[in-house]
Amino acid sequence: MSADPSTSAFAPANKPLFGEVFNHLKPHMAALDRLLAAQIAEFEPEIRAMADYCIDTSGKRIRPALVFLSSWQEGRPPVDELVKAAAVVELVHLATLVHDDIMDGADVRRNRKTASRAYGSAAAVLLGDALFAHALHLASQYPTPEVCHAVSSSTRRVCGGEIIQTLRRGTTDVSRDDYYRVIDLKTAELFRVSCFLGARLSGAAADVVESSAAFGRHLGIAYQIYDDLADFFGEEKRIGKTLGTDLASGKLTLPLFVLADRLSAADRDLLMEEIRGERPSQLDERLRQMRELGVWGAVADAIEAELGQAAAALAPFPGHPPVALLMRLCDVLRGQVASLRPAGA
Amino acid sequence: MSADPSTSAFAPANKPLFGEVFNHLKPHMAALDRLLAAQIAEFEPEIRAMADYCIDTSGKRIRPALVFLSSWQEGRPPVDELVKAAAVVELVHLATLVHDDIMDGADVRRNRKTASRAYGSAAAVLLGDALFAHALHLASQYPTPEVCHAVSSSTRRVCGGEIIQTLRRGTTDVSRDDYYRVIDLKTAELFRVSCFLGARLSGAAADVVESSAAFGRHLGIAYQIYDDLADFFGEEKRIGKTLGTDLASGKLTLPLFVLADRLSAADRDLLMEEIRGERPSQLDERLRQMRELGVWGAVADAIEAELGQAAAALAPFPGHPPVALLMRLCDVLRGQVASLRPAGA
Repeated sequence: MSADPSTSAFAPANKPLFGEVFNHLKPHMAALDRLLAAQIAEFEPEIRAMADYCIDTSGKRIRPALVFLSSWQEGRPPVDELVKAAAVVELVHLATLVHDDIMDGADVRRNRKTASRAYGSAAAVLLGDALFAHALHLASQYPTPEVCHAVSSSTRRVCGGEIIQTLRRGTTDVSRDDYYRVIDLKTAELFRVSCFLGARLSGAAADVVESSAAFGRHLGIAYQIYDDLADFFGEEKRIGKTLGTDLASGKLTLPLFVLADRLSAADRDLLMEEIRGERPSQLDERLRQMRELGVWGAVADAIEAELGQAAAALAPFPGHPPVALLMRLCDVLRGQVASLRPAGA
Repeated sequence: MSADPSTSAFAPANKPLFGEVFNHLKPHMAALDRLLAAQIAEFEPEIRAMADYCIDTSGKRIRPALVFLSSWQEGRPPVDELVKAAAVVELVHLATLVHDDIMDGADVRRNRKTASRAYGSAAAVLLGDALFAHALHLASQYPTPEVCHAVSSSTRRVCGGEIIQTLRRGTTDVSRDDYYRVIDLKTAELFRVSCFLGARLSGAAADVVESSAAFGRHLGIAYQIYDDLADFFGEEKRIGKTLGTDLASGKLTLPLFVLADRLSAADRDLLMEEIRGERPSQLDERLRQMRELGVWGAVADAIEAELGQAAAALAPFPGHPPVALLMRLCDVLRGQVASLRPAGA
């Protein structure tokens, strides 16, 4: 498996910043890699190379990390049931990436051609389907249908969020509530179910399972807002993609909501015209305004609010073994948000 | 739900030919329609109209019919578990249709715009995903993971078959065995699992379940060969699509294999060039040659061979209640194949 060249908030195990949490997961991630590699043989011979290509470029493995961390018991080696759950959520995630890249017309992901560029978008649509079907196939190998139920339900919500986002592109009659609802569906849902499965499969009590799921959900919302912030305040080299793609593609994200609120009425109208594609987007000008008007700070506050809710969900269970590492994961994200802070803000 | 305007082999309940079998299923199909209609509310509000659009255009409901017929007990009203299984296989089928139409760039299906034309291909990719996720969500509502397991496994095989077919378009280094393998995966698999679920959920003995599944598989192969035959020998008005699309899109189907075998070497080379897109396809000429060289009869024989294997699978269980109706289903397909027979053949 190739290393992930990106350095986004949740960097891979070999990146120093994240090492402090991910170092604990080395045997778990190795077991996950073995299980994922073994899945390739389950596909029809002609499509094994394609499946391998997608699984190999999978990157950060945040969702598997959440499965492992939310079932954490110091000193316990990887448990098959948890490794399988980690593979399930990762395969669902990979399937959505394959389909996202088709829709975005993306050429490159993590410094390699996307599946749709490598094999054609027709094959990529079906490959995403096959990866998703395989995820559910693994999920159906548990003694009860609970994992299938949770994962299929989440997937439907993830797709729902992505569809709504797609239909809204280039429209400006959306509210912050609409924005939050979409990221809750498209991103936080899979974070939530990862933590749910980790807690549930490790036999945690019902209230702990529910709180773990709530932790995952708020972490997921925070992570997506961070990702949307990085689209404006990141460095292209570090986040591994072109800046300003959300503005260019007409996607109203939190930094743009905050900017719009702080602009004069005339400037706000111009910005809305850019989002609707009625005039070319003025990225440099918008970035300058964002810096001047304190957008980074307002968005960082919104992320902090979600991390606070994540921590609050687990606060009643200070003795629950996963809590310490999950809290450190929040700190990692805080550090990454801070690293986007523009000079003078 | 709108009526299906097509008159393909398995026409809807209101078509006289199929009435003799489908009349038995009226209460079952009504229960299925109610269950499918109730699913719409489970999607996010913004995508309910899209989901409804796809479910409403679903057409022939062959796979649900197979669930009901292979669990048939004279006089028994529809059973919830079977209605749900029928909905699961139909939703998987609808999801693959939505994705197929994107890849084919199809504008119209059953006299309505395809989902990708109506909502854009990006939304259609995700809508197919959401329909599939919903199918698995319903499948996870059984007490054991068996339905999830069977359906996710089938779906992976269906996608595998479609991918292989997609990758092969415009290539001529494929054998009849390759052709049979693809239709086994892309079509027969879902017919097979429909019969498997009907038999299994109605409590049939293990050998009957296995034989029912084998029946479904061979019927599915026969059905796909019929469909490929109709692409050359059908009437556009009756089959509801343009003739010769397989030749035009470089898809080597059984009628073309048979034709190639019977052409002179020089003519065969020209045909292969047409399939590879190296020269425009000469549909009228190929149709004339097919009629002259007895292609209909050879393909009809291949269909009959599959129907024979389907019947043989169930022959050891003459007293099994579903057998009589399943055999009549085979006769319906025979009648449809006969209706494609060219004058003089």
